[in-house]
Amino acid sequence: MHVLITGAAGMIGRKLTARLVKDGALHGRTIDALTLIDVIPPEKPAGFIGRLDLAATDLSAPGVAEAVVAGRPGVIFHLAAIVSGEAETDFDKGYRINLDGTRALLEAIRKVGDGYRPKVVFTSSVAAFGAPFPEAIPDEFHLTPLTSYGTQKAICELLLADYTRRGFLEGVAIRLPTISVRPGKPNRAASGFFSSIIREPLAGMDAVLPVDESVRHWHASPRTAVSFMIHAADLTAAQLGPRVALTMPGVCCTVGEQIEALTRVAGDKFASRIRREPDPMIARIVAGWPSRFDPRRALALGFACERSFDEIIRVHIEDELGGNV
Amino acid sequence: MHVLITGAAGMIGRKLTARLVKDGALHGRTIDALTLIDVIPPEKPAGFIGRLDLAATDLSAPGVAEAVVAGRPGVIFHLAAIVSGEAETDFDKGYRINLDGTRALLEAIRKVGDGYRPKVVFTSSVAAFGAPFPEAIPDEFHLTPLTSYGTQKAICELLLADYTRRGFLEGVAIRLPTISVRPGKPNRAASGFFSSIIREPLAGMDAVLPVDESVRHWHASPRTAVSFMIHAADLTAAQLGPRVALTMPGVCCTVGEQIEALTRVAGDKFASRIRREPDPMIARIVAGWPSRFDPRRALALGFACERSFDEIIRVHIEDELGGNV
Repeated sequence: MHVLITGAAGMIGRKLTARLVKDGALHGRTIDALTLIDVIPPEKPAGFIGRLDLAATDLSAPGVAEAVVAGRPGVIFHLAAIVSGEAETDFDKGYRINLDGTRALLEAIRKVGDGYRPKVVFTSSVAAFGAPFPEAIPDEFHLTPLTSYGTQKAICELLLADYTRRGFLEGVAIRLPTISVRPGKPNRAASGFFSSIIREPLAGMDAVLPVDESVRHWHASPRTAVSFMIHAADLTAAQLGPRVALTMPGVCCTVGEQIEALTRVAGDKFASRIRREPDPMIARIVAGWPSRFDPRRALALGFACERSFDEIIRVHIEDELGGNV
Repeated sequence: MHVLITGAAGMIGRKLTARLVKDGALHGRTIDALTLIDVIPPEKPAGFIGRLDLAATDLSAPGVAEAVVAGRPGVIFHLAAIVSGEAETDFDKGYRINLDGTRALLEAIRKVGDGYRPKVVFTSSVAAFGAPFPEAIPDEFHLTPLTSYGTQKAICELLLADYTRRGFLEGVAIRLPTISVRPGKPNRAASGFFSSIIREPLAGMDAVLPVDESVRHWHASPRTAVSFMIHAADLTAAQLGPRVALTMPGVCCTVGEQIEALTRVAGDKFASRIRREPDPMIARIVAGWPSRFDPRRALALGFACERSFDEIIRVHIEDELGGNV
């Protein structure tokens, strides 16, 4: 089996790569070829014995998508995107990367023809929803995003469904919760603080909290995000039906509850590292995001996540800090 | 005031043009310039005394959209689209006209800049929804179209909302019911039979019914569709909020009830002109369409339509047949 990952140099892309290389197979089929692309050069994963192609390339540039699918990967994990904050500040870049890049990929797949019909797992986002919301958002709730990023994700979901319906590919879009705790440095996502208020204190550094502690949000760990993608790649067209976009399960909690979990899991000394610095732009973006879902379809299809933010913090300590704080 | 109509040569475009020329004004402001574009040459409307520009042109072709908005029309009625049947049989053309043409228009508006912020009334469709449905579809129900046409309309709604939110224009999308009774010749819309089973018998001709009489659908007259557009052009950003797409009211009835209304309104001799010829492709497309809505937002915002299919037939007889059958 040949697997392609776009956005492979990103945090989730690297974790997905590592998991696939470690497993050596995807749902029982040996991975004998792996293509990793990103706008920044993807790292060579350690220990992969199959054919490996790495490329620093931009799917939205002419001819790139055609070249990328020429090798007919059977499973494509399409993660490439710029994040919410950047899509909001750079309108052109957001549409180019997040919409045109995805469309170029889908079109390139369609134009291969000849019976080629790969599985395409697309990472959408709960930012595709927009306030006002019911208390728990059902699977049938409409997408009325309040950011350009959310708009681009919602449009790509529609394209993926239509290309699937037309038989050009087998798509599944998974609306990821905010990924917490993100390892590494802060990125330009407006949601970055949800992670940094945990990650920085645990690393002995100060963190900035730009919103009120009452802000409620929907979280899953990076490890769980990868497990969602792997699970999605195994769903059949019969299981999915025509509604190929699924809201993923997550942990619903407030920023205040995140901080309480930090104290419970790691001890008393960390919460004092969090500095309150209200940021109206961040607060405005986040206020339009959803905080609680009722993701029945995904649960019925076997997607599973952490049960509490305590557990999410423990995953971070295990996976990123070698089990030590 | 300068008004632009795209798709001006289509049935609704011509009726909208005629109404605007007859009124001479839009919500109290005199119309002193009118630009009419379409891929086929728009006819010169009789009796318009202001500046008139007519052009046979394709918005999706390079440079066309920029040229069209260079005159800075204050109100744009964006009707240009290919119909559902054609978008389903010609994938490339559907995306080019219905998606790329709309995006080119929005981009051209954005690039004018300099405080230019026109009102854009976009005609979307209930085909943006896809089965399975609740008995009456609420305003918060998700868009999961089952045709490429519906997908293109749903994507354009998302773009319009984002361009509105970013302040590039003031958009409003109205999801039109199926327009019945369409005058003139059949077009390639899969929904065409809903009109032809009324129109052809009243004109002394046979009509073909490709689906079962139990098929239920959502209708409004051409006259009402025009009144929806005029009303939409007067809504303020404060009235709309960020959810700029509205499902329009309509008349819900079965094909059988349409035929009964025909007999009630026009007499006994017409229904026998309807020939049953089942068409599986039409039946499949129509089966994925919605049939009943609960359009509370539109009703609260003052949109109104016929109360019965009898009334829709009477409007057809008045507007198209000079009051005579």
